[in-house]
Amino acid sequence: MSLVVQKYGGTSVGDIERIRAVAERCLATQKKGHDLVVVVSAMAGETNRLLGLAGQITDTPEPREMDVLVSTGEQVSISLLAITIQALGGKARSFLGDQIGMRTDNLYGKARILSVDDNKVRTALEDGEVVIVAGFQGVDAEGNITTLGRGGSDTTAVALAAALKADVCEIYTDVDGIYTTDPSVCADAKKIERIAYEEMLELASLGAKILQVRSVEFGMNYGVPIHVRSSFEEREGSWVIPEEVSMEQVRVRGVACDLKAAKITIRGVPDIPGVAAKIFRPLAGAGINVDVIIQNVSEGGVTDVTFTVSREDMELAQRISQEIVETMAAEGTIVDEQVAKVSLVGVGMRSHAGVAAQAFDALAEASINIQMISTSEIKISCVVAEDDASKAVQVLHTAFELGSSNPTT
Amino acid sequence: MSLVVQKYGGTSVGDIERIRAVAERCLATQKKGHDLVVVVSAMAGETNRLLGLAGQITDTPEPREMDVLVSTGEQVSISLLAITIQALGGKARSFLGDQIGMRTDNLYGKARILSVDDNKVRTALEDGEVVIVAGFQGVDAEGNITTLGRGGSDTTAVALAAALKADVCEIYTDVDGIYTTDPSVCADAKKIERIAYEEMLELASLGAKILQVRSVEFGMNYGVPIHVRSSFEEREGSWVIPEEVSMEQVRVRGVACDLKAAKITIRGVPDIPGVAAKIFRPLAGAGINVDVIIQNVSEGGVTDVTFTVSREDMELAQRISQEIVETMAAEGTIVDEQVAKVSLVGVGMRSHAGVAAQAFDALAEASINIQMISTSEIKISCVVAEDDASKAVQVLHTAFELGSSNPTT
Repeated sequence: MSLVVQKYGGTSVGDIERIRAVAERCLATQKKGHDLVVVVSAMAGETNRLLGLAGQITDTPEPREMDVLVSTGEQVSISLLAITIQALGGKARSFLGDQIGMRTDNLYGKARILSVDDNKVRTALEDGEVVIVAGFQGVDAEGNITTLGRGGSDTTAVALAAALKADVCEIYTDVDGIYTTDPSVCADAKKIERIAYEEMLELASLGAKILQVRSVEFGMNYGVPIHVRSSFEEREGSWVIPEEVSMEQVRVRGVACDLKAAKITIRGVPDIPGVAAKIFRPLAGAGINVDVIIQNVSEGGVTDVTFTVSREDMELAQRISQEIVETMAAEGTIVDEQVAKVSLVGVGMRSHAGVAAQAFDALAEASINIQMISTSEIKISCVVAEDDASKAVQVLHTAFELGSSNPTT
Repeated sequence: MSLVVQKYGGTSVGDIERIRAVAERCLATQKKGHDLVVVVSAMAGETNRLLGLAGQITDTPEPREMDVLVSTGEQVSISLLAITIQALGGKARSFLGDQIGMRTDNLYGKARILSVDDNKVRTALEDGEVVIVAGFQGVDAEGNITTLGRGGSDTTAVALAAALKADVCEIYTDVDGIYTTDPSVCADAKKIERIAYEEMLELASLGAKILQVRSVEFGMNYGVPIHVRSSFEEREGSWVIPEEVSMEQVRVRGVACDLKAAKITIRGVPDIPGVAAKIFRPLAGAGINVDVIIQNVSEGGVTDVTFTVSREDMELAQRISQEIVETMAAEGTIVDEQVAKVSLVGVGMRSHAGVAAQAFDALAEASINIQMISTSEIKISCVVAEDDASKAVQVLHTAFELGSSNPTT
């Protein structure tokens, strides 16, 4: 007998019929002898409906009250699923975030889980109940409702699995796994059977649609095997697990593409010690996440510093950059909102040389200009013009034989 | 400076425009120098929408889970109202039942309030916040969500007003007060300016549409003045307050009509001691509220016992009655589902003789047959055929000069 945590996303509980299908799957899982904890999201469309109500009032609602509002979506789902399981003759009990001590900090709208009190869940499991937990929500030290950000139910599920030392955390979604790249960009994309946590984190821009990054961190830190699979079929999906020796045989696991990048260059910066800090401290202070950074070779005591930010932070980053230019008497800023970041990811890069060179070759052959390069132990990212992004993904996907016509595992 | 508790019903917060009007009224109240606690119901239609979702699954959902489900309606309202007040430049903070320690028993769906922890509310009031509380909901000793039954937000409001020793509890609704009788039955019905708690309790069937009975009990027990008024206009509504000497000058305060009554007669019951207990104990055990009871004069050692129940309990009551007939070898049961109960209420009855006689005369003159009679110190109830009910109300309303053309106060 094992302990299984299952998470069902919004489309999986999108209407009463689908909730019934989830309930049946829950009871089947229990019948196999497993203890079962189920985490559910809001019914598809419900969170947007609630955001729409607030949007009729103001564009800048207070985050604390927004969390009170949007957390109702999951509350509706857990009760409906419990009622359905009970109607099918099973035993079930729903719990809100605060009812199972899902403690978070108080960053409303994007709170981070601090601890989980597993007592109530264990007691209910001992009573033979299917334990149904509202995803996405928690409670801060003062008893205020918090939410974990879009996709937060994944993190709820993995955190619960970690606290309960579950054997597996199954993430049920409307796709059947994680792919080598976005199938809508590259028709040849292939489902990945097994992927290391580290790779999954680097593939965030692929995975974010399926798995919240924070949930992968939880899985990695607590060694929870995550199984991403379809709620509409039975076959296995993709496993996100600790790195295995065999994984190193594959040089590249997948190709990610971030289309929402923007690039800022600060020109004519005096090339003296401490200058990087002067640029990036104010940006960090404003909560802006700077991604790729490059600094040109100095010429005549001045240099150019270029960095990328997410496009939604662009306006603020530009304003701050302008202030920096004035403070340090630099020449000015150049902004390019039409860039994208294409990344190759694979733990095999550690032991295989030449991955970067092969990637650059492939892009050059396709006449794609690389604007910036950034590398880590298991990742190579290239910033390219937005118009080149899809082509870059396809070229790299083919160059490293990731397609379904080229089995790599 | 005083402390005011205001309660807004579902139609008052039915859409974003109406929520804005409530927010403006809240800020205006605060501007007058009052501390303000606001209790809100679910947006009109929302509770029914949620019940409809559960209804698609089963007709007999577990009450605990239903409370998890329906309590989301108020949660949406409080956050939207808080966001609106904030958007208008005010300070506001929303609280769920459990966040202000609204402790109840665990009778899901019809829980009773046991205690309120006023600490958080007082702290927020000291910070100058409009305190917004979710009506209708509480939490039991184990942290489960409970709800207080239809109209429960009234009770939330009055209970909070009692705990906070508020100067007044204002119930905002879509009518402008409590009337001498249902205006849809009797066009001449007149708004009551002041009514005693005891009278309001007896007029439950009138007031239930406006004020939950339990809220009146709270008001009476803790001496909270309740002001029932329209959220769409400024003028005063009806005050529910402790009995005043001047109130006794009025013989009849209002005429109530309960159209949902049903009548059961158990025929040929052996007229021996303990027989009433044998009939009514099983009915009480099944949770059936028996209202009017009469026992005929005994003839030949047997008698008839007749009683009324609410029509929704009819089927169960009939089944139990049949069992009673068999147990005590009575003759059988006669059932009449087409009855109504018309009641005259007024604390003035205590000091004015002849009210009953005058009522019977008036009904007789209108050829209305009285099937059963029940009286208390301040009430006279007559069970009549359902078809006669409206006419009975009109006749009595006129006989006691309650109409707007006959000022009685």
